[in-house]
Amino acid sequence: MINKPLILVVNDDGINAQGINFLAVLMREIGEVFVVAPSSNRSGTSHAMTLHEDIYVNTVSSSDNIFTCSGNPVDCVKLALNKILPRKPDLCVSGINHGSNHSINSLYSGTLHGAMEATIKGVSAISFSHLSYETKINFNEYSSFIKNMCKENIDNKLLKDITLNINIPDVPFSLIKGAKICRQGRGQWNEEFVATNKKDNMPSYRISGKFISQTHDKESDSWALDNNYISIVPVSIYPDHTSHLQSFKYLENVI
Amino acid sequence: MINKPLILVVNDDGINAQGINFLAVLMREIGEVFVVAPSSNRSGTSHAMTLHEDIYVNTVSSSDNIFTCSGNPVDCVKLALNKILPRKPDLCVSGINHGSNHSINSLYSGTLHGAMEATIKGVSAISFSHLSYETKINFNEYSSFIKNMCKENIDNKLLKDITLNINIPDVPFSLIKGAKICRQGRGQWNEEFVATNKKDNMPSYRISGKFISQTHDKESDSWALDNNYISIVPVSIYPDHTSHLQSFKYLENVI
Repeated sequence: MINKPLILVVNDDGINAQGINFLAVLMREIGEVFVVAPSSNRSGTSHAMTLHEDIYVNTVSSSDNIFTCSGNPVDCVKLALNKILPRKPDLCVSGINHGSNHSINSLYSGTLHGAMEATIKGVSAISFSHLSYETKINFNEYSSFIKNMCKENIDNKLLKDITLNINIPDVPFSLIKGAKICRQGRGQWNEEFVATNKKDNMPSYRISGKFISQTHDKESDSWALDNNYISIVPVSIYPDHTSHLQSFKYLENVI
Repeated sequence: MINKPLILVVNDDGINAQGINFLAVLMREIGEVFVVAPSSNRSGTSHAMTLHEDIYVNTVSSSDNIFTCSGNPVDCVKLALNKILPRKPDLCVSGINHGSNHSINSLYSGTLHGAMEATIKGVSAISFSHLSYETKINFNEYSSFIKNMCKENIDNKLLKDITLNINIPDVPFSLIKGAKICRQGRGQWNEEFVATNKKDNMPSYRISGKFISQTHDKESDSWALDNNYISIVPVSIYPDHTSHLQSFKYLENVI
């Protein structure tokens, strides 16, 4: 590559999160960086796009190419590719998320889905998450791994329609046993609904809960993370279940 | 089944859409129905859940079991299963959506993802969409097909972790050639960003665009719909690309 690679950095925790600021600094070591991030926390927004409201774009620093958008990660990527970046980027990197996006969590993740929107548009894309939910994390020790993973994928070795979903366990780097290509572990949330203040006599809730892993499969991301491996899951933007289409043929007779 | 089956009806167009009201009436012919729908239009909200705001639940009709929720389809299903329904339902039906949810559109679809949330919780779930974006659609002629498809799936023949994504072409029923089990067609949106009123000197946009099909594969939902078939795509809640895990093994050496 003659010119410096162009890298789009996005996240779902919003522009003020430590993770995205660390990632932007790191990416500047290997390319020309544009940051286009939500102006506030948009965790859990999955692949949601803003259809019924205006989306505002704010230039935080024109010299450092830092922008915020009032929408979700998917909106950030759409706007970046169409209205902000000078050309199609060579890579989109999302994160580093503060908290897990493995197993079923990836379906809710704005971090992963921001990257997936770039994949839809034919841009190599990687999502990074760290299993700590702390606002301050020692990302420094992962610099070399993250940088090398990004460099490896800039030249589009990635299969078409595939996004990499990478999760880092919450342990010191010295304890990391390696990186592992994984399936998604099976699991779900046991939700809790905390009653909040009623409005106009309507009950009101905040959702929280506890993630319950339902897998002990050694090929799964859940197992890898529990055993101090960095998990790398190739995720498809097309979740159709094509391996057993034949087994659904009986439904064609319903009409 | 001794008791009447319990059916949860949800959508993303909101409680006032014709599609969900038609579906609720139809489902009452085969079971006890609870409607839990967004209070306003939540199209394009994918699998987004509400983490940073209170969610309000409004009882529209306690005799007819109709409720609204201030959140997204995923929030509706979580609240329905945990706070509103008397027991785990035998089926969750989402829609009928006004507009297409085939090909890549399914990734953005709140209709499909409402159903997918039920699948996560172990409930058989089907998403119905009609390709017309009109607010008034002649759904009547599809009554028998929709009812039979729901009855067929109430007793949990569906594979674990699979949601059915069903799209109906915008043609009179007399022209329908049949129902077809399909893969997702490949395609994407060519976005257009319409500039709206600036706020605090920030540029502002509304996203619209045109869907471009990139497939002519006769196994695809795009082909089926173009050729007057109802498309049925089995969608997995786990989109990991497991068929070629081996081809990603080189990434384990990056660390």
